[in-house]
Amino acid sequence: MRTNKRLGERKIIEIIQSHLDSMPKMPIPFGDDVSACDIGNDMLAVLKTDMLVDRTDVPPEMTLWQAARKSVVMNVSDFAAKGVRPLAILASVGLPGNLARNDIDQIGKGLNSGAREYKTFIIGGDTNEASDIVISLSLFGTTRKGQLMLRSGAKPGDLIAVTGPFGKAAAGLKILVDGLQVSKKSRRSLLEPVLMPRARLDEGLALSQTSAVSASIDSSDGLGWSLHEIAKASNVGVLVDSPPIAEEAREFAEMNELDPSEFTFYGGEEYELVLTIKRSLWGTAEQAVRNAGGSLLLIGKVTAKKQILMEVDGRISIIKPKGWEHFKMVQV
Amino acid sequence: MRTNKRLGERKIIEIIQSHLDSMPKMPIPFGDDVSACDIGNDMLAVLKTDMLVDRTDVPPEMTLWQAARKSVVMNVSDFAAKGVRPLAILASVGLPGNLARNDIDQIGKGLNSGAREYKTFIIGGDTNEASDIVISLSLFGTTRKGQLMLRSGAKPGDLIAVTGPFGKAAAGLKILVDGLQVSKKSRRSLLEPVLMPRARLDEGLALSQTSAVSASIDSSDGLGWSLHEIAKASNVGVLVDSPPIAEEAREFAEMNELDPSEFTFYGGEEYELVLTIKRSLWGTAEQAVRNAGGSLLLIGKVTAKKQILMEVDGRISIIKPKGWEHFKMVQV
Repeated sequence: MRTNKRLGERKIIEIIQSHLDSMPKMPIPFGDDVSACDIGNDMLAVLKTDMLVDRTDVPPEMTLWQAARKSVVMNVSDFAAKGVRPLAILASVGLPGNLARNDIDQIGKGLNSGAREYKTFIIGGDTNEASDIVISLSLFGTTRKGQLMLRSGAKPGDLIAVTGPFGKAAAGLKILVDGLQVSKKSRRSLLEPVLMPRARLDEGLALSQTSAVSASIDSSDGLGWSLHEIAKASNVGVLVDSPPIAEEAREFAEMNELDPSEFTFYGGEEYELVLTIKRSLWGTAEQAVRNAGGSLLLIGKVTAKKQILMEVDGRISIIKPKGWEHFKMVQV
Repeated sequence: MRTNKRLGERKIIEIIQSHLDSMPKMPIPFGDDVSACDIGNDMLAVLKTDMLVDRTDVPPEMTLWQAARKSVVMNVSDFAAKGVRPLAILASVGLPGNLARNDIDQIGKGLNSGAREYKTFIIGGDTNEASDIVISLSLFGTTRKGQLMLRSGAKPGDLIAVTGPFGKAAAGLKILVDGLQVSKKSRRSLLEPVLMPRARLDEGLALSQTSAVSASIDSSDGLGWSLHEIAKASNVGVLVDSPPIAEEAREFAEMNELDPSEFTFYGGEEYELVLTIKRSLWGTAEQAVRNAGGSLLLIGKVTAKKQILMEVDGRISIIKPKGWEHFKMVQV
């Protein structure tokens, strides 16, 4: 077994981080969805970098245009979770020597489409020769201190909500990667979130204005993983009593005799926000998200008991800390 | 011939850029060493991303610690050329599956050493699985509008200066890549700038306080290329009458019957600043750099005639627009 396969992405990050001196008074700790730097006047510069590599992040049938666009979406999703508008993007692109002119056009167009979709711009970057197609973006934005929605503020009694149902992307990946069969209509619906994912930026920005949110994270590593991260950062537990599975994903799971909750909790590659909401401000949060064109699904509550549980049909079970992880390729 | 080899890095950047919508009122045009975003109060956020790929940017004998440190230096050098202090760095790291734990330690330590050397910090990042070792950094800093040293302000009559002699890195690469022979003492001196390059941050910061600099660029693609870039951005010409070759590089070239001016102008992978200085403020600039612990070498002057020339022993010749370029591997 190769070394990194054993270590896994999170352990590798931990190793690298262990060698880094911490910036004094760092406004956001290592490990949240974004990083930040104090720029005075009560303001923070918010920064994020995330790398897309075709070998591991681009499923079959995804075009280069879609892959480049996705590289924007996955970064914007982290800004969305923190309630910060991305003002500008830099793109660092590694390309193999054998790409055609048209491939490069598609990458440029996909980057621009992704950026414009979220009302931001690519303002610079760099290219380099590499064995894979590598698109490493960095996002920049600013926010008022105290307005950032971190992972760490959840309190027992808070409600847990998500911005949409889960499982379609996991089902879509099963179709694309494992070749599972499905009707033509379902196929389109299940592939859509894989090939054309959307970040919940409007929802995140609207929520950041309400002070209703006590903790927030995106769900790109899977809903189960996100719940564990919020619980760990906030030192609380979680009880999910309404697992938010998408109807099409449930049908697909049942047809293929697979466990629907695997799709709901452990899929990854989904870009919904996972939020804890102060109970007294639930209505405010719901209204803000509705005004932004989205909806908030109530899935459970934050508990004092530090366990990550779900209750379905009166049966309580543990939500495992597993999800998408590079090098390990943990996936449904 | 593979497609990108024919296109070359600069053409690829041009293609991608052609598909990007421009941010309105972008404070720095595409193609300067850094990018910027207006953050109000007369301030700019300055951003830079540059990717190191082991396959193309890491010569033989360079350790992983040195490679990770170099990834910091090459980004800091661009901030140095603009006179901006890097406040924070994000690191996006792609790693092959077969790295040992110790390799990852070395990357973490090298990143931190590079950052601390320039009094900044790595505050976040990401890892991913890739075929190559890819280290894509993004730097963030702020500056007052109007204090940025751009490529575009050179005027005929301005003096041209560099912060150090050229050619050692090119000679060092000849030794490492082509296996040319050299004495043990010279070997160490010529490999130093390749394996342990240094960015001229203190010099750049000092100069940005003087208003003596009319244009500035770093020399990572080679002195010749940098002169062409300043000339193009400023719409002027250049006459170099004192090519700044390092003594050890001249000796090495002569011993190997190679052309010393190839080493001076077309080497690349050097991190000196190339500056145009208002004639009346030459003394001020020189003193500022001396106070910062460096020195300024006068190499020529800016001309109205739009040619990029050198004059040596009364003979005038053209400095070609060639230098280090990914995909093309143009190198001495």
